[in-house]
Amino acid sequence: MTLTQERVVHETQQVLEALEAGRLEEALRLLRRFHPADQAEIFRHLPSRHQVLLLRSMDVEEAAELLEELHEMEAAEVADDLAPEHLADILDEMDPEDAADLLGDLPEDLKQALLKEMEEAEDVAPLLQYPDDTAGGLMSTEYVALHQEATVGETLAALRAFAAEEIEIPYYLFVVDEKNHLVGVVDVRHLITAMPHVLIREVMDPNVISVHVLTDQEEVAHIMQKYELAALPVVDDENRLVGVISYEDVLDVLSEEATEDILHLGGVESGPLLERPYWKQRLLEVVRSRFFWLLFLFVAETFTGTVLRHFDEELTKVIALSYFIPLLIGTGGNAGSQVVATMIRALTLREVGPRDVLRVIWKELKAGMILGLAIGLVAFLRAELWGVDYHVGLVVAISVMLIIVWATLVGVVVPLTAVALRIDPTLVSGPFMATFIDGTGLLLYFLVARAILPQL
Amino acid sequence: MTLTQERVVHETQQVLEALEAGRLEEALRLLRRFHPADQAEIFRHLPSRHQVLLLRSMDVEEAAELLEELHEMEAAEVADDLAPEHLADILDEMDPEDAADLLGDLPEDLKQALLKEMEEAEDVAPLLQYPDDTAGGLMSTEYVALHQEATVGETLAALRAFAAEEIEIPYYLFVVDEKNHLVGVVDVRHLITAMPHVLIREVMDPNVISVHVLTDQEEVAHIMQKYELAALPVVDDENRLVGVISYEDVLDVLSEEATEDILHLGGVESGPLLERPYWKQRLLEVVRSRFFWLLFLFVAETFTGTVLRHFDEELTKVIALSYFIPLLIGTGGNAGSQVVATMIRALTLREVGPRDVLRVIWKELKAGMILGLAIGLVAFLRAELWGVDYHVGLVVAISVMLIIVWATLVGVVVPLTAVALRIDPTLVSGPFMATFIDGTGLLLYFLVARAILPQL
Repeated sequence: MTLTQERVVHETQQVLEALEAGRLEEALRLLRRFHPADQAEIFRHLPSRHQVLLLRSMDVEEAAELLEELHEMEAAEVADDLAPEHLADILDEMDPEDAADLLGDLPEDLKQALLKEMEEAEDVAPLLQYPDDTAGGLMSTEYVALHQEATVGETLAALRAFAAEEIEIPYYLFVVDEKNHLVGVVDVRHLITAMPHVLIREVMDPNVISVHVLTDQEEVAHIMQKYELAALPVVDDENRLVGVISYEDVLDVLSEEATEDILHLGGVESGPLLERPYWKQRLLEVVRSRFFWLLFLFVAETFTGTVLRHFDEELTKVIALSYFIPLLIGTGGNAGSQVVATMIRALTLREVGPRDVLRVIWKELKAGMILGLAIGLVAFLRAELWGVDYHVGLVVAISVMLIIVWATLVGVVVPLTAVALRIDPTLVSGPFMATFIDGTGLLLYFLVARAILPQL
Repeated sequence: MTLTQERVVHETQQVLEALEAGRLEEALRLLRRFHPADQAEIFRHLPSRHQVLLLRSMDVEEAAELLEELHEMEAAEVADDLAPEHLADILDEMDPEDAADLLGDLPEDLKQALLKEMEEAEDVAPLLQYPDDTAGGLMSTEYVALHQEATVGETLAALRAFAAEEIEIPYYLFVVDEKNHLVGVVDVRHLITAMPHVLIREVMDPNVISVHVLTDQEEVAHIMQKYELAALPVVDDENRLVGVISYEDVLDVLSEEATEDILHLGGVESGPLLERPYWKQRLLEVVRSRFFWLLFLFVAETFTGTVLRHFDEELTKVIALSYFIPLLIGTGGNAGSQVVATMIRALTLREVGPRDVLRVIWKELKAGMILGLAIGLVAFLRAELWGVDYHVGLVVAISVMLIIVWATLVGVVVPLTAVALRIDPTLVSGPFMATFIDGTGLLLYFLVARAILPQL
């Protein structure tokens, strides 16, 4: 049974009522009807005292499945309240990479105590040394590697034995030589259909795509997407197999990277916020993630005030010039953000790179000039409708045209330069760029006014 | 061998040189060293006359693999130049969903002629009736369904026969009853390890998650991600199995949806642009996708001019008020886009929904008030540093505070209301909202000025 968002509210209510009335068994029975992903959905809406109570009453496998589905921060928060021996048993049952993520969010001394207690510590401990956003942080160490000199028959017998022990068999089985170097890959489906006496070496595909343990997670996702891989082996400096990344892990990476881009383009520092779901974000974390950008942009934006004060005399003489200030800088910002959105999409899909900068500028400038002319014409007509002076209308029309072309140029150069400098382009292409266009656009406006208005 | 972006340029040059010199066989040999995904990368950088020449010289399987990797629009453009009989053979070799995508982009008469010519037309034709962005548009009709009353032994024998015919066997095998109703799912890995005499009914998992053929692709991606499914069966109104969606298709959906959000937030109409890679987008399409938003926003932004003209007298009396206009509306826009980015992320990850609106407003307002106070204080000090009148400094400080709180409120209400009205929140939360905040923010500023400045 799967849960819609509307049903979650109702089911959470039912579980909560059972818990409030002290009917723990009933609450567990209600939860057990659902897929662990849905159990997590209900669980995260319960008060933490009930969460701990439930987790303590579940058997170890159930608790492990539930913790795997929770956000790692949420899992760490409840796990903290369990008895260490019990938690160690649960961690042993979890996927090593999920267990490592959880352990990484616990206090250092508890983490060390748990690793001592755990039976599967040797699967989990190596994962703790890699940053979360690298191949090493994503990979699982619980994989089945085949030996290239074994036969298909021997291998199938071994797999049956694994299955009897309830060890999960992956779809792709990676093949190693006697020194654990990655040498090939075999699809489970080919094993079923091959003759039992054939050697693994003969059925494997030696063209196996792998990544290094420190490869960035975005690159991992790109490779799995491009080559449509269900599993990607991870190797160390000497091409020895150290883990396997599966497509499920990459689905989450794609969502994470995409929503991180949106935060950056909105001018929010993503760091601490990405680790917690919305409702777990603390007020001060939220304020901190916004304050420095907002302050920095405020200070940068005061440059517009400097420009305006510099053209004090012009403004006093022709007050009508001030009416168009928000319109002009708003339009510059809009034109710039259209170009930036196009660039970020093309960069994300790897359709353009820094070396294309001249071709991109040329392509975008053509569009920018057409848009500038069109909106410039509209601006002139609008100014005439307002009955402002003919010369002021001309200044506005020419300025809006120049500002759109200028914003287009900035919108291409900023993200592509960022990529060339290995800076995340979304960090500098949002409000930061808009602020820059505001100030420089105003400067253009008043220079055009000086050149055209007879009274200045 | 996999290709980095830098290598693509070099390899394309080599292939191109061979083609220019008329050494077609050498060009093919160079291409064949690479994975089809990389072949496509090189191929898309070649002039179209060489593309057609290459495609004509490839054998049918090779050409099919290459066309599968190209963007559907790119594939349609080269395919158009092939002889229809040859193209029909290639389409027969392609994945039915890729073949349907390609056919959908060809002229209607050519499409009909090809469907008549094709041997696998009955696999492809049903797919043409579903919109591209639904489960029906994503699914493959080339799946293996098991009968619930067959034994594991019979099934494995049948799978071996399929494999001998080079039919690809999926990881998850869906089980149907005699009327083709979906009743369960079996993992290939469980078949290998089960006893041959057991019935499929006994080894299958009857809790199979499925979607309707018209389910939106974003929902499909969400379900496969949440439940970590490698394959998702698609059913019709009567729960009859009609197709299967695999995780590879969903990886592309996630990228497509994420980059569509970024385009919308940047004020670009996504429709026609999403169908073509960056370099295939025609100038007029690009201009059209931006012009109407830019024009609409320009017209909406002229409201700021109306506000300023209305407060003409105040501006003339206190020209210093105009210095702060870009700063105030810029800060309002920045504060709003920070909140919107947070909302879009929480909505995408399904952490909040429209029914949470009050709780979200409360949470965000707290942050908004702290940020407003802090930036308001900075604004006051900055105005004093500029040496503007104490009263003007006070007006700016109070206005910036009110504008940040107001922008926060708008930034929560607009996207959540859009979702409640079933409008894509990214469509109305970008420049449109910023423009609204500009105009209303100015109004706030002058009302505060009127209330505080002694000379007004």
